[in-house]
Amino acid sequence: MTGSWRGKRVLVTGGAGFLGSALCQALGAAGAEVVALDALLPGTGARRANLEGSGARLVEADLRDADLPPLVEGIDALFNMAGQTSHAGSMADPFTDLAINGHAQLRLIAALRQGAPAARVVHASTRQFYGRPQVLPVPEAHPIVPPDANGVSKFAAEQYWLLENRVHGRPVTALRLTNCYGPRMRVMDARQTFLGIWVRRVLEGAPFEVWGGEQLRDFSYVEDVVAAFLAAAEALATKPADAAGRAFNLGGDAPISLKDLGDAMVAAAGEGGYVLRSFPAERAAIDIGSYHADDRAFRALTGWAPRITLPEGLRRTVDWFRPRLPAYLSDET
Amino acid sequence: MTGSWRGKRVLVTGGAGFLGSALCQALGAAGAEVVALDALLPGTGARRANLEGSGARLVEADLRDADLPPLVEGIDALFNMAGQTSHAGSMADPFTDLAINGHAQLRLIAALRQGAPAARVVHASTRQFYGRPQVLPVPEAHPIVPPDANGVSKFAAEQYWLLENRVHGRPVTALRLTNCYGPRMRVMDARQTFLGIWVRRVLEGAPFEVWGGEQLRDFSYVEDVVAAFLAAAEALATKPADAAGRAFNLGGDAPISLKDLGDAMVAAAGEGGYVLRSFPAERAAIDIGSYHADDRAFRALTGWAPRITLPEGLRRTVDWFRPRLPAYLSDET
Repeated sequence: MTGSWRGKRVLVTGGAGFLGSALCQALGAAGAEVVALDALLPGTGARRANLEGSGARLVEADLRDADLPPLVEGIDALFNMAGQTSHAGSMADPFTDLAINGHAQLRLIAALRQGAPAARVVHASTRQFYGRPQVLPVPEAHPIVPPDANGVSKFAAEQYWLLENRVHGRPVTALRLTNCYGPRMRVMDARQTFLGIWVRRVLEGAPFEVWGGEQLRDFSYVEDVVAAFLAAAEALATKPADAAGRAFNLGGDAPISLKDLGDAMVAAAGEGGYVLRSFPAERAAIDIGSYHADDRAFRALTGWAPRITLPEGLRRTVDWFRPRLPAYLSDET
Repeated sequence: MTGSWRGKRVLVTGGAGFLGSALCQALGAAGAEVVALDALLPGTGARRANLEGSGARLVEADLRDADLPPLVEGIDALFNMAGQTSHAGSMADPFTDLAINGHAQLRLIAALRQGAPAARVVHASTRQFYGRPQVLPVPEAHPIVPPDANGVSKFAAEQYWLLENRVHGRPVTALRLTNCYGPRMRVMDARQTFLGIWVRRVLEGAPFEVWGGEQLRDFSYVEDVVAAFLAAAEALATKPADAAGRAFNLGGDAPISLKDLGDAMVAAAGEGGYVLRSFPAERAAIDIGSYHADDRAFRALTGWAPRITLPEGLRRTVDWFRPRLPAYLSDET
């Protein structure tokens, strides 16, 4: 796999963010010529420091108004990681949410159609728009019942990209992500993932809060997510008939209850503790209960499987943040 | 039913358009105090003349920038008929398509949340986003596979409205319309429905074109559509637990092949003819094959059923347009 990226021109949107920067690191190590496009907006988890050592060129620009043609001209592949992903944020301001996940995506699609009509695209989608699961594990054919405005806009974004395959033949695949975690994730608050604030609290020696506790979730460690995006891009080249125009769930290690996850976090850190709280009433309307992905289609297509167990991933995450925590407690990008 | 609208304050967006104006006519006759909001954009089928005799007050404004609070303050019900519905138009300009079906809908939702938190809403949705049917008749649980940008944005619009029920408890129902036809539809071209251009051609004594011919479609006559919207609003008041937060298919008379429809059109007009053409290559990518709706859920909920047969509806349509055709052959609104 590694060899196939040597000298390839790759654009990673959201490239300074948690997952985007991890992709840039991996692609840089594999010899790709990487441009990381990122607006470095506060609250997104984007940081210049995330790209240190990656060799990627950071272009600080916003997809909503960036001059895109020079950035996409002649690229071989796009990893499209940029997006508004805050659920609470989308309910407070659905206009900005739609501008980022709708209008800005249309701009990128139009630019790519002109400047890189054959480039492969792997789009970061989300399990969010399934809403409260009607069956477990959740297959890709699950009804679309977005629990928040972000689910509406992220489904639109995914469908705009898949449409590029159906109408224009572009090789594009979407990965519907579940909870992702690992080094470089946002930990100053719960805006990107609740696991972030857990890591912060445990390293600060304060108890974190577990809301509910019985809900099941699955978790993807960042290295496994990166491997999945690279495998998806590979499949678009080697098995386009099976990979292109499709959205695949991406899960992780075995599902776990939030209470057990709290125990695992404390064990990984070797310190700290948590308090169980009932799910806050003001969040109940957008709570989805238990979720874990049926990702057999993607595993069958690519041979991908998660390699990092949850205890190992939590340990690595806490260890990575322990010396770096202060740098990750501000919105300076 | 009629009595229940007397004195009610009702807003109809897209109120000067084909279906919106028919609703205004019916609501006015039932004694409602109706405001028709319409941007009177060329190409939409909106005309001032459509509202003649309805008693509705026309407010010429665009949902994308209208001063909405005074228009929604204290209304009892909203029939939300405004939308960009041109499939080809959405592919040529997906930005405007999203601005109308996404951003503008969010504006309306926000205004309504402030000014009329308890108003019932019946939202005009579409079968368009099912894409090429995987089963016939098509149930509401059919996968969402939009064949064009308009399908993406119209699904987003519907979901934003249904979210208002799930998160804020608003009584809202969406009706997923199939091909609608009847007096006041756009006939100068095929932009609103291909049946429009058929009516024009047959009245001009020129043959119309039937593309393909074997595909099945179902057709809803405008009076039946109006009855369905009123029945949906009624159900929101009388059976909120069964009606609110749901999207229902709306079909019509029995499905018919396009070739048989061509014959029925000629019979209804008592003149004219058609030529069979293979489906144009440039449209094939967004062709969906056969479609007809499984609308049993809506019929069971409301007791609604179409009352106008297809031959009768076609006859009424042609008879209505025969003396009025010249007035409908320009984009003057």
